[in-house]
Amino acid sequence: MPIAPARTQVGIIGAGPAGLFLAHLLHRQGIECVILESRSHEDVENTIRAGVLEQWTVDLMLSLGLGERMLREGHFHRGITLRFAGESHHLDFEDLTGGRRVTVYPQHEVLKDLIAARLASGGEIHFGVRDVKLHDLNSKRPHITYTDENGQQQELHCDFIAGYDGSQGPSRQYVEGRTEYQHLYPFGWLGILVEAPPSHHELIYARHERGFALLSTRSPEIQRLYLQCGPTDNVADYSDELIWSELHQRLETVDGWTLTEGRIFQKGVIGMRSFVCDRMQHGRLFIGGDAAHIVPPTGAKGLNLAVADAVYLSRGLECFYRTGQQTLLDQYTNTCLRRIWKAERFSWYMTNLLHTNSTESPFEQRIRLADLDYLVHSQAAATALAENYVGLPLD
Amino acid sequence: MPIAPARTQVGIIGAGPAGLFLAHLLHRQGIECVILESRSHEDVENTIRAGVLEQWTVDLMLSLGLGERMLREGHFHRGITLRFAGESHHLDFEDLTGGRRVTVYPQHEVLKDLIAARLASGGEIHFGVRDVKLHDLNSKRPHITYTDENGQQQELHCDFIAGYDGSQGPSRQYVEGRTEYQHLYPFGWLGILVEAPPSHHELIYARHERGFALLSTRSPEIQRLYLQCGPTDNVADYSDELIWSELHQRLETVDGWTLTEGRIFQKGVIGMRSFVCDRMQHGRLFIGGDAAHIVPPTGAKGLNLAVADAVYLSRGLECFYRTGQQTLLDQYTNTCLRRIWKAERFSWYMTNLLHTNSTESPFEQRIRLADLDYLVHSQAAATALAENYVGLPLD
Repeated sequence: MPIAPARTQVGIIGAGPAGLFLAHLLHRQGIECVILESRSHEDVENTIRAGVLEQWTVDLMLSLGLGERMLREGHFHRGITLRFAGESHHLDFEDLTGGRRVTVYPQHEVLKDLIAARLASGGEIHFGVRDVKLHDLNSKRPHITYTDENGQQQELHCDFIAGYDGSQGPSRQYVEGRTEYQHLYPFGWLGILVEAPPSHHELIYARHERGFALLSTRSPEIQRLYLQCGPTDNVADYSDELIWSELHQRLETVDGWTLTEGRIFQKGVIGMRSFVCDRMQHGRLFIGGDAAHIVPPTGAKGLNLAVADAVYLSRGLECFYRTGQQTLLDQYTNTCLRRIWKAERFSWYMTNLLHTNSTESPFEQRIRLADLDYLVHSQAAATALAENYVGLPLD
Repeated sequence: MPIAPARTQVGIIGAGPAGLFLAHLLHRQGIECVILESRSHEDVENTIRAGVLEQWTVDLMLSLGLGERMLREGHFHRGITLRFAGESHHLDFEDLTGGRRVTVYPQHEVLKDLIAARLASGGEIHFGVRDVKLHDLNSKRPHITYTDENGQQQELHCDFIAGYDGSQGPSRQYVEGRTEYQHLYPFGWLGILVEAPPSHHELIYARHERGFALLSTRSPEIQRLYLQCGPTDNVADYSDELIWSELHQRLETVDGWTLTEGRIFQKGVIGMRSFVCDRMQHGRLFIGGDAAHIVPPTGAKGLNLAVADAVYLSRGLECFYRTGQQTLLDQYTNTCLRRIWKAERFSWYMTNLLHTNSTESPFEQRIRLADLDYLVHSQAAATALAENYVGLPLD
């Protein structure tokens, strides 16, 4: 195991999408960094999360030389299908957005590719660290103390710290004067992994009076499906039989398409919340990704939003090391928040549009159906949804 | 005063936009009708209500030969201005929708034109009637009983009855098996009429932390302005000084534009609610306009939606008298509701977008600002707003 060096230019806390993309972006500019990650290498590469990449995220992976396996194993979709009121409507995002597509390539596969490439080029990633503490953030020489996976106390001195350590990580707590915005939804998702061939060549989002359902895919052999459930429901209360019954009812309409069943080998309940921290920097610390914002999974924005933070921070750091100017770094919070709030809006909108919600009045529930009806018949409204789903351009 | 005839083809209850347009549409097809109205002729022509006509409503008035004064005295706007977060953004609806515009011509002026033309061509409108009751709606010869303005009991026998008598009229109560959807907003509008020249050549909608404001116009000499207030606020609590202070703060931004003051000669508080009755026919009775649905005024949809009901009913009646087929009449509710729910959605959306709302969380309030920021920078989102504002095409 390498001993943590005493010195680097950028200390990155977190080997998630934000931290790993940042490391690759900095490496491309010749800026040194070290990543500290609390989970084990194995855990990071085996935790199943999001699966949809925006077009510019795909383009970025390709430009960094990290997209080879994604091109081979990812699924490229022209659009999605919306089902409601017994009808099925296809939205062709490629047509609506002038060629941008939906790429389904799971987050843990992205992480595997980025970690492998980083280690192969001599990059340092320290897994299994604990007791991460940040120091001297208002100085030009902040440092990080932590316990490494062998129980050794370590110190990492750097010019800047990227706190990309997830919603439960320590970094956000160091950002003084922040306001946190949160919205909890009165429902969750029961997610399952199934051994079966794909039932459909694209994602199907369904709003049904029994609740939301989503058909997604992972590989030619493994499918990912979701079912709206109570926010604190226990997976033990969902037998395979009940799950299939609900999925058939919610996803199938009169058009004759049927869902292919298979062995369910994983079940889990996902809570749904929106969260934004309105200040993302403090002295030489910059936070991003889940440390600064959470979206419900409906709009498939989480991973992409984390990568956008990393892009903005890398631009600021590149500018600093090239010119000595902190201007872009000073604007980091505002630049990120502009995109974050738009993605928060879209995720909140898609979530409210597609779920039955006991806190909404019958009038509001009918409004959601009217919105869907409008959406699938208006070129402008469908384009607005499409451009958000495939990803608004980076400023 | 004419005595109500004993017999006509279509008995219309209500001399509002829906009833009067229906009368003209039927007259064009040679179908007889009689209008009964509870208010006096003077009241109808002097009650100040909506002021914005959708493009197809304007086109309909022109095609009926009723648009001469509107063309002369109406105001034709390319778009609207949205103000929020200290910024001002113009949305050019004419560009966004391929040539459709906003016409500002007050509802009572429309009514004056329609009443005058109807009376000039020998049409019957009985004002000041009371005790309207409907009978034998499930037969082919329904009839209406009422007391005329001279206190005489009258009976009007007809083939069909149009219950276009507003939200408080008796007609809706005869529709059996209906479900009513309602949504109340925790705010209202304080509306004022002012003797002043126009402050701006188009409407300005402002979302400000102090609340919504709207700058509108009536004529070169009279301006109409609105201020978000409490739903049950009393006009007596709003001095002229307070009103101007609030309007200046909410409408003016850093761009140097200023509001022109003048003598306030009318003040009134308008409640804000959404309402839909999901069944609009019962036997030979068809309801429409405010009798069947209410929208908050934010999206300027009320009058236009009432006229759309009249168009759909006239098509059904024309088909019936030409062919003897009731098919279109049978579809009246469904045809109307499809458009109504879309207009309800738009009005609810615009209202939530532009008002501060004590029942929304700080997260949701920030989402509204993000939506505005997205809207004014996305061609697709701006087009979606524009196409709703100038009016979705009639099916």
